[in-house]
Amino acid sequence: MPRLTLDEIAALTGGRVEGDGSRAVTGAAPPHAAGPDDLTFVFNERALGEFLASPAAAAIVSESAQVNGRAVIRHAHGTSAMPKVLAALYPDQRPEPGVHPAAVVHPSARVGARVHVGPYAVVEKDAALGDDVVVGAGCYVGARCTLGEGTRLHPQSVLYADVRLGKACVVHSGVVLGADGFGFVRSEGRHVKIPQVAGVVLGDDVEIGANTCIDRGTMTPTRIGTNTKIDNLAQVGHNCEIGDRVIVCGQAALAGSTIIEDDVTLAGAVGAAGHLTIGRGAVAVAGTGITSDVEPGARIAGYPHAPLEQWRRVSAVVRHLPEMKAELRRLGQRVAELEAEIRATGAAESE
Amino acid sequence: MPRLTLDEIAALTGGRVEGDGSRAVTGAAPPHAAGPDDLTFVFNERALGEFLASPAAAAIVSESAQVNGRAVIRHAHGTSAMPKVLAALYPDQRPEPGVHPAAVVHPSARVGARVHVGPYAVVEKDAALGDDVVVGAGCYVGARCTLGEGTRLHPQSVLYADVRLGKACVVHSGVVLGADGFGFVRSEGRHVKIPQVAGVVLGDDVEIGANTCIDRGTMTPTRIGTNTKIDNLAQVGHNCEIGDRVIVCGQAALAGSTIIEDDVTLAGAVGAAGHLTIGRGAVAVAGTGITSDVEPGARIAGYPHAPLEQWRRVSAVVRHLPEMKAELRRLGQRVAELEAEIRATGAAESE
Amino acid sequence: MPRLTLDEIAALTGGRVEGDGSRAVTGAAPPHAAGPDDLTFVFNERALGEFLASPAAAAIVSESAQVNGRAVIRHAHGTSAMPKVLAALYPDQRPEPGVHPAAVVHPSARVGARVHVGPYAVVEKDAALGDDVVVGAGCYVGARCTLGEGTRLHPQSVLYADVRLGKACVVHSGVVLGADGFGFVRSEGRHVKIPQVAGVVLGDDVEIGANTCIDRGTMTPTRIGTNTKIDNLAQVGHNCEIGDRVIVCGQAALAGSTIIEDDVTLAGAVGAAGHLTIGRGAVAVAGTGITSDVEPGARIAGYPHAPLEQWRRVSAVVRHLPEMKAELRRLGQRVAELEAEIRATGAAESE
Repeated sequence: MPRLTLDEIAALTGGRVEGDGSRAVTGAAPPHAAGPDDLTFVFNERALGEFLASPAAAAIVSESAQVNGRAVIRHAHGTSAMPKVLAALYPDQRPEPGVHPAAVVHPSARVGARVHVGPYAVVEKDAALGDDVVVGAGCYVGARCTLGEGTRLHPQSVLYADVRLGKACVVHSGVVLGADGFGFVRSEGRHVKIPQVAGVVLGDDVEIGANTCIDRGTMTPTRIGTNTKIDNLAQVGHNCEIGDRVIVCGQAALAGSTIIEDDVTLAGAVGAAGHLTIGRGAVAVAGTGITSDVEPGARIAGYPHAPLEQWRRVSAVVRHLPEMKAELRRLGQRVAELEAEIRATGAAESE
Repeated sequence: MPRLTLDEIAALTGGRVEGDGSRAVTGAAPPHAAGPDDLTFVFNERALGEFLASPAAAAIVSESAQVNGRAVIRHAHGTSAMPKVLAALYPDQRPEPGVHPAAVVHPSARVGARVHVGPYAVVEKDAALGDDVVVGAGCYVGARCTLGEGTRLHPQSVLYADVRLGKACVVHSGVVLGADGFGFVRSEGRHVKIPQVAGVVLGDDVEIGANTCIDRGTMTPTRIGTNTKIDNLAQVGHNCEIGDRVIVCGQAALAGSTIIEDDVTLAGAVGAAGHLTIGRGAVAVAGTGITSDVEPGARIAGYPHAPLEQWRRVSAVVRHLPEMKAELRRLGQRVAELEAEIRATGAAESE
Repeated sequence: MPRLTLDEIAALTGGRVEGDGSRAVTGAAPPHAAGPDDLTFVFNERALGEFLASPAAAAIVSESAQVNGRAVIRHAHGTSAMPKVLAALYPDQRPEPGVHPAAVVHPSARVGARVHVGPYAVVEKDAALGDDVVVGAGCYVGARCTLGEGTRLHPQSVLYADVRLGKACVVHSGVVLGADGFGFVRSEGRHVKIPQVAGVVLGDDVEIGANTCIDRGTMTPTRIGTNTKIDNLAQVGHNCEIGDRVIVCGQAALAGSTIIEDDVTLAGAVGAAGHLTIGRGAVAVAGTGITSDVEPGARIAGYPHAPLEQWRRVSAVVRHLPEMKAELRRLGQRVAELEAEIRATGAAESE
C-alpha cells in the first residue's frame, strides 16, 4: 500500500501544506469516515465540520477554510486534486500483460505490445489490439474490431464485428457495443428486419458504464466522440452521433439518428426521440423527454421538454390544480349570481 | 464483397430501372454519405436533394420522384426493398458450423445439423438445438432449453433452464431469458422468495435486443408470440403473455402477468403495471405509464395513461399553468370588487 | 418429480385439509391452468370461480371460501404457504459441488466445502467462497471478493474486485457488482476520472435481479442490507446505502450517495437524485422521481415527488386542463362585460 507525505501530495497536486508536511497518509476517505492515517477532502461547510470532528490525518481544503490548526493542504481547486490523490494512493490494478492460454485469439488478429487478454476471452478474425490494451476475462471482440492504445475492456463486455475504439477507452462489464439497431419494415403483414451493416466508432478516452448498449449503424456507423462519458444501463440507438465531452447519465436513452453536439449533459433517465439535434452545451435534467431539437446551451426539463425554469414554475403550480379547479367553479357561480343580480336590477330599473 | 448491377437489384426487389441497368454497386449508404459505388435510398424530399447532390451510383426512389436523369430504381414500396438490398450487398456473417472444442455440451443435449456452438459456450442437460442453430461464444443454455431451427444466440446471452425458442429467433448479447420472476411474500417480518418454477416460451422469428430480460413464469411460462420484436434493455415480468407481431422498444417494461395482444406497439420506456390487458393494435408513445386495461386500437400517452390526443392537448396547456393561476387570482379580485360595488349600489338604492 | 399428498402439504404449511387427505399432487398451477394432478391457489373471488370450474386436484383457500365440496387445504395465510409448496414440489436444482476443470480459480482463493464453480468461471486472487457457494458458468469473481455461505451467482454475473456478499444471497445473470461509480471532475476542459477505489458490501439473503448494476463506492463501499430484494435492470449509484428488507423494483435507479432506510419500497422505474435520505418504510409508486428527502412512512408519487394522495387528485384534474383554460377565458369575458355594464349603470346614475 502506498504511503505519501503531505509534502508529496502537495507537490503532486499543486497545493500548499499547512502543518507538518512530513506526516504520511496511507488512504483517503470522506470526512465522516476518515481514520488517523487517512487524507480527506473538504468541499463544503458540512464536510469541514466533519473533518474537524474526525481523527483524519489531514484534509485538502479551500484557501479560506478555518481549520483550527489542523494539518491541511490548501488548494484553489480541491476537486481537481482528488483524482491525482486517489490514483497515487490506490494505483490502478491493471492485469499483467499476456494472452491467457484459455483465450481464443484468431491468428489473423494483430496484438500489440504488453496486451492482456484474460481467460475465456475471444478475439475474432482481423481484430486489432493496440499496445497496452486489456481485454478482460470472458470478453468477446468481434471481427475487424480495433482497440486503440491503452483501451480496457472489463470482464464480459461484448463488441460485435466492426466496432472501433480509440485510445484509453474504458468499457465496463456487460456493455454491448454494436448489436443490431432496432430497424424493421412492415411488409406483407410481418415485421421484416433491416440488416444493420455498419459498426460503432468511439473516440479516445471514452468510458462506457456497465450494461450499456450502443447499437451499430444501419449503413454508416454510430459515433461517440472523444472524452465522452456514458453511465450504466444507457441506450444509444443506431446512427446516433454523440460529440466530444458529452455526459450521458444512467438509463438515458437515445432513439436512432439523433445528434448530440459537444459538451451536452443528459442526466439520468433522459430520453430523446430519433432524428433530433441537441445543441452544444445543452443540459437536460433527470427524466427529461426530448421530443424536438434543442438549442445550444439550453437547459431543459419535463416531457415534452420545456425550458427548465418554465418547468420548475409549472411543477410548483401543478399541485394546486385541484384547488384551482374548485376556485374556478366557485368564481363561475359568483359571476352567475352577479349577472342575475344585475339583470334583476336592470329589469327593476326598466320597469 | 458482392457486386450487384441495377438490373439485378431491380429483379431482386421488384423495381424498375431508369438509366444504365448494367451499372454495378458494391455498397449501400444514406444519401448524404453515399459514394460513387453506392446505392442509396430516397424516402423523402430532403433525401432526394441529398441524392441529387451526391456522387451515388443510383438510388431507390418512389414512382414520382424527379431525378434529373440520374440512374434510379423506381419502386412503389421502397422501404420494403431495403432489407433485400442490404442482405444481398452485405451477406449475413453466420459463424461456420461446428462445436468449438472449448465449449461444454452435455452428452444428453441434442444437437442438430450444421449447428455452431462457439468457444466457452455451455449447453446443459437435455437441451435441444435445432438444425442451423448458432450458439455464440460464451452463451449459456440451461437444462431442457429448446432452440428451433435457425435460431441464433449472439455471444454471452443466457438462457436459464426450461426456455423454449421457436425457429429463426435472434437473441442479442447480454440478454437474460428465464431468470426468476420478482415474487416474494412477506412472512414473519421478512421477504420470502416464491420459487419461480416455469420457463419462457418464444414463438418463431422473435428478436430480443441486447441486455433485455424476460423473466420465467411462477407456475406457467412467460410467453412471447411469433414475429414479435423487442429492443434493448427492456423488461418483461413473470407470466406476461405477449402476442404476435408486437413491437417493444428500448427500456419498455412490463410488470408481471400483463397480456399484450397482437400487433401492439410499445414505444421507448413505456411501463405497464401488472395484470393488465393491452388490446390488439394499441399504440403507446414513449414514456407512457399504463395503469389500467387499454382498448384495442387505442393510442395512448402520459402517466396515468390517457388518449394520445387528450394528452397532447393537456401538454400544450400545462405550460400555461402559472399564467392561469395568476389570471384566476386577478379574476377573483375583480369579482370581489364587483360584488362590493353591487352591494354598495344595492345599499344605496335601499336607503 | 415429487408427489405430495394433501395431508403432507397441510402438515408442511400448517393448513387444514377438507376432503381426501391421501389425494396426491405432482405439480402446482394457477386456477385457470391447473390440471387433475395439480394443486392450485385461491386468493380472490375470480380465482375461486376458476378453481371450481377446473379439474384441479385441490386448492389452498382461505378459511371462509365456499368450495362446493371440492378438496381444499384451508389456510389463514395462503400466500405464505405458497413458497413452501412450490419448494417442495419443485426442488431447487442447484448444480453439483465441484470446481469444473474449465474454470480458473487463483491458487490464493479460499474455496469452502461443497462449492460449485461452473465452466469458464474465473475466481481471482484472494477471493473467498464460503461453504455451499455456487459460482455459475462464466461468472467473474474479482480479487478479494467474499461470498458468504450458500450464496449463489447465476451464470455470467460479474463481481469486480472487493465485493463482499453475505450468506444465502442470489445474484442473477448479467448482474454487475462493483463497476466504477460515475465520478468525474472537469479540469482544463476535459472530464477527468475520479478513481473509484472502494467496493460493494451486501448483507445476507439479498437477491439481485438480472442485468442490475450496483457501482462500487468512491472511497467507502456502497452498501445493501439484509433481506433486501432488487429486481432486474436496476441501478444503484456509488456510495448509496440501502437498508434491510428494502424492495427495489425493475429499472429503479438511485444516483450516488443516497440513503434508503429499512423497509422502503421503490416500485418500477422510480428514480432518486443523489445525497437524499428516504425514510424507513416509505413507498414510492412506479415512475416516481424523488428529488428531496422523504419522511419515514410517506407514500409518494410523481416528479417532482409529492404525497401519493395529492398526486392522485392532481392526476384526476390535469386532464381537464384544456376545459379549465377555456372556462377561465369565458369567465374573464363575462367579468369584463359585467364591469362594463356596472360602469355604464354607474355613469347613467351619475348623470
